[in-house]
Amino acid sequence: MSLADDIALAHRLAEAAGAAIRPYFRGEIGLETKGDASPVTLADRAAEEAMRRILTAEASRDGIIGEEFGTEREGASRQWVLDPIDGTTSFVAGRPIFGTLIALLEGGFPVLGVIDQPILGERWVGAMGQPTTFNGREVRTRPCRELSDAILGTTSPGAFSDHAAEHFMALAAKCAHRRMVWGGDCYNYGLVASGHVDIVCEDSLKLHDFAALVPVVEGAGGTMADWHGEPLHIDSEGHVIALGDPARLEDVVEALACNH
Amino acid sequence: MSLADDIALAHRLAEAAGAAIRPYFRGEIGLETKGDASPVTLADRAAEEAMRRILTAEASRDGIIGEEFGTEREGASRQWVLDPIDGTTSFVAGRPIFGTLIALLEGGFPVLGVIDQPILGERWVGAMGQPTTFNGREVRTRPCRELSDAILGTTSPGAFSDHAAEHFMALAAKCAHRRMVWGGDCYNYGLVASGHVDIVCEDSLKLHDFAALVPVVEGAGGTMADWHGEPLHIDSEGHVIALGDPARLEDVVEALACNH
Repeated sequence: MSLADDIALAHRLAEAAGAAIRPYFRGEIGLETKGDASPVTLADRAAEEAMRRILTAEASRDGIIGEEFGTEREGASRQWVLDPIDGTTSFVAGRPIFGTLIALLEGGFPVLGVIDQPILGERWVGAMGQPTTFNGREVRTRPCRELSDAILGTTSPGAFSDHAAEHFMALAAKCAHRRMVWGGDCYNYGLVASGHVDIVCEDSLKLHDFAALVPVVEGAGGTMADWHGEPLHIDSEGHVIALGDPARLEDVVEALACNH
Repeated sequence: MSLADDIALAHRLAEAAGAAIRPYFRGEIGLETKGDASPVTLADRAAEEAMRRILTAEASRDGIIGEEFGTEREGASRQWVLDPIDGTTSFVAGRPIFGTLIALLEGGFPVLGVIDQPILGERWVGAMGQPTTFNGREVRTRPCRELSDAILGTTSPGAFSDHAAEHFMALAAKCAHRRMVWGGDCYNYGLVASGHVDIVCEDSLKLHDFAALVPVVEGAGGTMADWHGEPLHIDSEGHVIALGDPARLEDVVEALACNH
């Protein structure tokens, strides 16, 4: 399949997930708590099942790594990474700032990523060698001359280990105090791509949380890295930085004090 | 004026504010930092000006207490309290979960409140003796049998003083760990009224931040109080609780450890 075919397939996956999710939003969601204490709903499961059905029918040689239903064809060189609802807590609370994440890995590297917000009808698509689009229009990150000008986003203070929280607070202290946004999960990374947020810094992200974000942010001119400034890889520990302006990477890494 | 007239006027205020805000969303917003370090944009000012023009023309005897342009006719028995953009940081970051807040105080008591989200076209209206509506339909809060089942929301950990943060964390520890939502400002209170969020607990709210929330939450069956469980009043210190299920007030106050 060509990259254009893969992109078209990713759009169909996002549409199927959105169609599965929308009837549950602000309705009877069947909330449960998983073994790791994270929440899951009927919508998470229905959306992942809908995407898996399409992949089984249309890309039967590709592997699947899904948040809710695990891994299939582990050795395949192409792997679809699915997070049906990233930001389940926002979904549960009726806040339309969660997203469906879809990534395609080739040889472990994310070559295609989608962030889809099915309630607002907002979709970011990033693909290697192509400009990132938001609802079909090209978007760019924005320059950020100094950390003190930056809008910094992160989802939850509770997501940081004690040690990581200290490093994060060191970064937050260098950014503009009253310009931090909390909550938002994957949605904040879309806003980095669109040039409204400058930095997202998080702990504890898993592959299904970050794989789709990389092509979206980088195709818009930004960069993603771990807290040491190194490229993310398939078994990154979950310390993730997204930067609209790659020129600030050294400042962010220094502020996080990961260099001593 | 009858309450129905006041409600109709509040709708016109919300429409004027929304029309002023929408052109700036994700555009050139003219971000500045005020003396108290909080952000303000061209949209905040344009929206408050639009509302003040209408009040001056249609309710010239009423007082106005506005976040951006201060107080007029301080001694008036009826006071309109305006917060053109509650959640300016979310607005600046391109997140459609901020809101315009409009309250009418009579004798210092909020008899009418509006939470308007102009990007999503979502409006909660609460008025004394009437059921709260969301886009014209009646909404109700939901029951919450135990704190451990509760979805708890708050805007930012940075909004708590050190002392208040300890009390807040004591409450958070009693609520479900992975069911906390961060960010959201007034939008979370609308979601309490609609029965999707159970508790919002915040520090540092000013009159223009909370006056409009009281009729919205209480008209939907919930309750609002300070951290001691006492009714909010015009010079409340800014420690605010909103509860969908008033039966949990004692539990929340106890968890906040304000009773010793």
